[in-house]
Order: sequence, then structure tokens, then C-alpha cells
Amino acid sequence: MSNAENSPHLPIEDFRNYGYQLVDWLAEYFRSIDDKRILPEISPGDIRAMLPETAPEHAEHMEDIIADLDHVVMPGMAHWQHPGWFAFFPSGVSPVSVLGEFVAAGLATQGMMWSTAPAATEIENTVLDWLVDLLGLPSSWRIDTGPGGGVLQMSASDSTHLSLVVARHHAVEAGHPTDSLVAYGSEQAHSSIEKGARIAGFRHIRSIPVDASFCLNVDAFEKQIGLDLADGLIPTWVCSAVGTTSTTAMDPIRPIAAIARDHGMWHHADAAYAGSAMICPEFRHLQDGVELVDSYTFNPHKWLLTNFDCSVFWVADRSKLINTLSILPAYLKNESSGNPAAIDYRDWHVPLGRRFRALKLWFVLRSYGAEKLRSFVRSHVDWAEELENRLALDSRFEIVAPRTLALVCFRHVGGNETTKSLANAINASGTTYLTPSVIDDTDFIRVSIGSTWTERRHIEALWELIDMNGPPSEYHL
Amino acid sequence: MSNAENSPHLPIEDFRNYGYQLVDWLAEYFRSIDDKRILPEISPGDIRAMLPETAPEHAEHMEDIIADLDHVVMPGMAHWQHPGWFAFFPSGVSPVSVLGEFVAAGLATQGMMWSTAPAATEIENTVLDWLVDLLGLPSSWRIDTGPGGGVLQMSASDSTHLSLVVARHHAVEAGHPTDSLVAYGSEQAHSSIEKGARIAGFRHIRSIPVDASFCLNVDAFEKQIGLDLADGLIPTWVCSAVGTTSTTAMDPIRPIAAIARDHGMWHHADAAYAGSAMICPEFRHLQDGVELVDSYTFNPHKWLLTNFDCSVFWVADRSKLINTLSILPAYLKNESSGNPAAIDYRDWHVPLGRRFRALKLWFVLRSYGAEKLRSFVRSHVDWAEELENRLALDSRFEIVAPRTLALVCFRHVGGNETTKSLANAINASGTTYLTPSVIDDTDFIRVSIGSTWTERRHIEALWELIDMNGPPSEYHL
Repeated sequence: MSNAENSPHLPIEDFRNYGYQLVDWLAEYFRSIDDKRILPEISPGDIRAMLPETAPEHAEHMEDIIADLDHVVMPGMAHWQHPGWFAFFPSGVSPVSVLGEFVAAGLATQGMMWSTAPAATEIENTVLDWLVDLLGLPSSWRIDTGPGGGVLQMSASDSTHLSLVVARHHAVEAGHPTDSLVAYGSEQAHSSIEKGARIAGFRHIRSIPVDASFCLNVDAFEKQIGLDLADGLIPTWVCSAVGTTSTTAMDPIRPIAAIARDHGMWHHADAAYAGSAMICPEFRHLQDGVELVDSYTFNPHKWLLTNFDCSVFWVADRSKLINTLSILPAYLKNESSGNPAAIDYRDWHVPLGRRFRALKLWFVLRSYGAEKLRSFVRSHVDWAEELENRLALDSRFEIVAPRTLALVCFRHVGGNETTKSLANAINASGTTYLTPSVIDDTDFIRVSIGSTWTERRHIEALWELIDMNGPPSEYHL
Repeated sequence: MSNAENSPHLPIEDFRNYGYQLVDWLAEYFRSIDDKRILPEISPGDIRAMLPETAPEHAEHMEDIIADLDHVVMPGMAHWQHPGWFAFFPSGVSPVSVLGEFVAAGLATQGMMWSTAPAATEIENTVLDWLVDLLGLPSSWRIDTGPGGGVLQMSASDSTHLSLVVARHHAVEAGHPTDSLVAYGSEQAHSSIEKGARIAGFRHIRSIPVDASFCLNVDAFEKQIGLDLADGLIPTWVCSAVGTTSTTAMDPIRPIAAIARDHGMWHHADAAYAGSAMICPEFRHLQDGVELVDSYTFNPHKWLLTNFDCSVFWVADRSKLINTLSILPAYLKNESSGNPAAIDYRDWHVPLGRRFRALKLWFVLRSYGAEKLRSFVRSHVDWAEELENRLALDSRFEIVAPRTLALVCFRHVGGNETTKSLANAINASGTTYLTPSVIDDTDFIRVSIGSTWTERRHIEALWELIDMNGPPSEYHL
């Protein structure tokens, strides 16, 4: 570090002092998260109104900058880490993961190639191989022994997009016009399926109807393929949702795989949320047939205590991914180019540069150990089951979708307006946040259990809010 | 934070203690970076061989995990922050930025929508508006007053890819077949142009010849368009490199813009490295005509002291970007959907989720202030000019490309082998790392000055290495 008197950078002793101060600030944030109002009471523009219109010309004091975490940032925070956060899916975080991200930032290594970041590259492919075994996935997906391999992406959307690009690339190489290619997913699949397909240039994106459990209807899928073939189109890619976003419905991978194979389609599994649960063997039946897919994504940054961004993307055959993306200009050539033991991850995703994201995942897997991670996931599933049972036994409520993991979907028997009012009343508490949703004009409430700091008592408190705000069943009848 | 005795998480006091320990560890890393061997002496597989084949079943001690930073990570580090790092382009970092990333990780906010992260969203659009003015870009790119706007992406590759997707989307909407679209860039453009175009589904990607200064040859560009039109193809997208990777050549934006306008093409400017220099008014002539482009990207994570990932992507008309990417499922609808003051950044890029990347940029812009950032950039340009002058005056060397900013490209007059030997000898020092490159079978050496900790004395040391290892000019003649 510079000892020059005119160095423009923060002196090392100041880094140390402000570093300690921010460690304390975050420790206090974690400690007090339960006491905070879960959503901010502000309007669009309020935070911006506190900021100057132009950048400061002269240096500001670090004390003032740090103070603005309380004065500017906190008033505009939706506290995803609040233990009463049951909205969307959880935003993975843990003290250990935060420390890992901190170190990775400090090292500022650029992982585009093995030669520019050997440790980051090898730790990444090692921990992703660990996860293959931890999740009970095909060992041929391990990079050390199989033709497959994993890479960290920013999000499941990126992974899904990439699988679409690889599928499109090979279909076009086989001579099909881009505009003839078709991508399929269930009408309950995540928005990233349609968005990813659109970004990848698919002109034909099919939303396949679902069955009563909101899983992709295989007959409808086959029928749609028949219609598309009759129109001269080329079925190219299909997604099996291993847990849809609205209700964690599980698409039937095995029959979908058979159809995909018959038509030479790329079969992608989106287990963004549910993948983390596969560390527990008892949940693996939910993704029966997973060994048949061509690619798979899941997000440790959702339910595995690791900070966003940390999404895993596995391909069963890494050569297909690399062939699609590899470009090697002169300034990136080096001694280890082409060495199979030296993975150049730049050929595994859209960006060239990449940070040392595997560090936090390595920290998390080691500091918890598989045993504690399993019990962490199991506790949420148990609490979800308890809540589901209470709701099912109460005549005011009904479960609207089968619970597969730690997401409970219910509604008030009084109908849409009563259900929406109930959700609003619960969210107005300031201690709890859950997401209202809709399927086929039926409003319901999603309770997603999985935040780091949530304990059983927070589910009790949620139940009390539901109970208190849920009118009698005859109210709207 | 949990007080439960059976909490699986790191207790708050342990977070504090290990946090302090890692602050100290990073402080020591910064302090001692100059003493380290710049590249590791290892082979592919060496780091992996230190790691177990499977994840630990039981929790490991944090002490052991932290100790492995020294035992496992350090032996496999290419030290991008070493002050003798003149390779590639710099990997932006500063103590302040690292602290910002740490806090952002701790907050674990998910910025997909305004409503899920109001502070993160509004700080992001504010600092990107600040940068519009700081870089002297068109004020219509400010989101608060114009039709344009900025968004943080992971890398310039992502920004470039996205601009290609928007261009393709609108060309297809206008009725053109995907397979008829053509993307253009100079043959010196970054690999992300070809890679991005391929990922975006362009079947026709043209490498346009360059002039003697390695800038896109406008006549050749026009001629190629004529050929493509004659073949029934549709010119759709063109990139102006504001600083190529090999030599920081500057494509002539103004005439390229005129051609792009005539043909209804999307015109993207890739200023990944050079954009940071535009905070100094004296360099803005290098991107004359920038107000005419449709999109622009630059990376504060290269030369503006901000950690990767932090790439800015501006569009002159944000509605074109949003129209291409917006998808609104039920579970993402909320009260502020559609409110123009509530930006939903999920519609501005491929992923849905996003972390609070603007925090570190806000920290950096405030703690340095515009004044110090300008002098930081200017010092590198000055040192590059000094080095260039020394090389130019020495009969052993020749400058192979005009220097525009802080990249010096030179070779030994003895030819390719002598030049490559010189690069190898310098890199073998262990104190300095620079990238050999090639254009048209001419080997040369890139010296990119821009690392955070580099001082004038390190350029002196580099000169001594060049001087010491460069054989007399008659040696190979």
C-alpha cells in the first residue's frame, strides 16, 4: 500500500478503523433486524431528494458517508433479512457469507481465465463439484470426473438464458432458421423463461397448460409440439420447473425428458429455489429424472445462506457450452490456454470478467457443514407444514396448491377481496411481509419460509396475524 | 439476530471478532502487496489438490477457514493489485470501494424492483446521473430529466450484449428475419463484440478493417454495408470502440453515427476502459460525437477505483430497452408498478435479481470527490507519456500504436522473437506483469498503467527492467 504522502487513497489505518466501524454497524444491523419496520414508509423519489444533483467536487469525510447509511439508506430499505419476511423467495445471506464477499472484494481478482486467477478458478470448480454430490446430482456433472461441469452465474435468469443460447446455437448449426425455433415452459414457469427466450432471440415461446397441481401437463406439451411441427417449426428447448415461483409446483422431469430426447431438444431444469432443498435426500423424489436433463440451475443465494449473486449452472456436457461461447483473441492467449486442467471460465458465460464469488460459498459450506445446512432447510419445511396444517384445519382458509417444500399458498374462503384485504392487513403490521399472488383470477397468499433469522416463534407470530385479521368464514359468503 | 441457543449461525460476537480479523488481514494484504511475487508459481490442479473431494459433513472452525486464505488462496493468486501490474486493463479497487461492497453484502437487499429496494434503486439512478455530468455526456441521458438513463451491469460484455439484443428486437419487430441481421465492429474491437453478437443470435458479424492507427476504417464500413444490402441483409448494429483493447485506438464516432443513422442501425459505444478518463475534459475530444450514439458502456471497475462488478450502461432512449425486456408476472405486481419515479431495474438487464452495487460507487465518488479522481487518472496518463517518450527516444524500441491514454504499446526493433523474449524476461522478474499482444503478425508489448497502488517509482522500475532486458538494437539486425 502506498506510503506516499500525496496518495489519494484512504490510509491503511483509516481503512482499519472504518472497517471495524462497519463490522460493528453490520453486527448491530443483524442484532436489531427484528425491531425494524419491515418495509419503508416512503414514496418514489424520497431517497433521491436527500441526495445532491451532482457528484461532489471535493472529497467528503468517511464519517459523513458512513453516517448516511443511517440517514439515507436505512429509510429506504425493504429489510429482506427481517425474520418476518415471507415474501417472494428468501434472499440468502449469513454472517460468514458476508465476510467471504468482503475478502473477495478486497482481493479484486479477475477470474476470466485460470491464469489470471488460479485459486478463484480451482476453488470454484471444486465447490461446485462438492455441490453435485451434496445435492445428489449425477456424478458425471462433476468437472473432475465427468463431461459436465458447473459455473457460478449471477442469477438463475442468466443460467436459463445461457441454456437457451446454447440450444439455439446448436439448432442453427444444424441448419434450422433462427425464426423457426420454439421454446417451451409451463404457464407457471418463472418470468425468466419467457424473458430469457425473448433475449436469446426465440420468436416462438409456448406457455404449456398445467394440471390441477400447477405442474406442466405432459399431454398438452406433446400436443403443442405436434402443432408446431405441423407448422414447420423446430422444437428446440424446454424447461422443467423444479418448483414454480407461485406455488413450487414440480414439473414431471422424466416424461418431459423422454419427449425432449425424441425431438432432440435441450432440456433445462430451473430449480432456482428448490435446488437448495436437494441437500436433504428425502426431497430428491421431487426432481425424479434429473439425471436426464441437459442443464440445471439453482441459487445458493436463495436458500443456502450465501449472498446474492451466487447461482449455480451445471451442464451435462460442458463442450456444448464452451463451443457456443469460446472466442480467443491474441491478448487472452497464454501458456495454459487449452490445458484441460486449467478452466477458463470466460467461455462459460456472457461476461468476460468475473469476481471471486466461490469464496463466500466455500466459506458457507465449510463453516456450516452439510449437517447444519440440512437441518436449516428442514426446519423451514417443518414450520411450513405446521402452518399448512393450522390453515387446513381452520374453516376460514383453504390451501390452494400442494405444498412441496417451505412455501405455503392459501386463501380466505371469502374470496379474492377478502384474501387481498387479509394480505394487506398482515403487511400493514410492519412486522411481517408476504406476497399476494394470483392464478387464473384466484387471489391467494404466498408464505415463503427461509430467511436466515426466522425462528419458529416468527411463524407463531405470523399465525397470530393471520388468525387476528382473517374474518369468520361466513363473513363474505 | 437470533439469540436462540440452537441457532446454526455464527454468533454476533464471533461475526464481530472475525470481521475485525479479516479487516486486519486485508489491511495487511494492501500494505504488503508490493512485496509479493506478482504471479503464482503453480500448475493447473495445484490448488485443487489442497482441497478435499467432498464438502465437509460437519462445521469447520472459522479460524481454520480464515487460515486457508494464506494456505490455499494466496499460493494461487495473480495479484491484480500489485503496483507492478501493467497487464490487460486495471482491475478497479480501493479500500473505500471494498468497504462499500462489504456493507452491500451485509444488507442483502434485492434490487429487482423499486418496491423491494427503494434506497438501492434511487442511489443507483442518482450516481449514474452524477456520472453523466462528470463524464460530460449528453444531459438527456440523465434519468431525472431526459428520455435516457443508466443501469449498472456486471461487465461491458453484458452491456454490449444487451445493446445487441435491443437492436435485434426492434429490427425483428420491424419485420426483418433474425437471420438477415448484421452486426459490425472493427477488427480491433474487443472479443465481447463478436461474443455478444453471437450470443444475441446474429448470424452475420463483420470485422471491419482498420486504418494505420487501428481505428475503424469508415470507407470500408460503408463498402461492407453496400455488399450486405446487395445480399438482402439488414445492417442492424454497429460498435464504436472508444479505446480498443489492444491499443486504445478510438473509432471515429461522428462519421460512424451518420452512417448508422442513414441505415437505421443501433450505434453502441464501448468505452469500457477509456470512459473513466472522460471525467477529465481534456480527453473528451477522443469521443467526439458521443452525443449521437444510442448506447454507451464504461467500467468504473477498470479505472475508477470501484470493485468489479460495476459496469455502467446508458441508453439514449430507455423506452427501447424497457420495451425489449419488460415482463410483468402477477407475483411482481405491486403498488408502484408503472410509476415513472419508481424505476424497476429488472427491466433493464438479463437477470431479475440484483445486489446493491451502487453503494460502493457512491462511496467512491464521495470519498474521493471528482477532483481527486481526475488527478488519479491524469497521473497515469502523465506516467504513460513519460514512458512513451523514453521508449521513443531509445533506438532499441519503437512505439507501435498512437498512445491515447495510459496504455503504451511498443516493441523491440529486433522483431517478434526479441520482443517476446523481452516480455518474458520482464514478467520473469516476479515484480512486474505486462501483456504481450499481436496485431497482423507483429508482436508487441502492452503497458497498461492504472492500478490503484502504482506510483511513479513503479514506472521507473519498469523502465529499468525494459532497459536492462532489451538487447542493443543491432542485436538481431
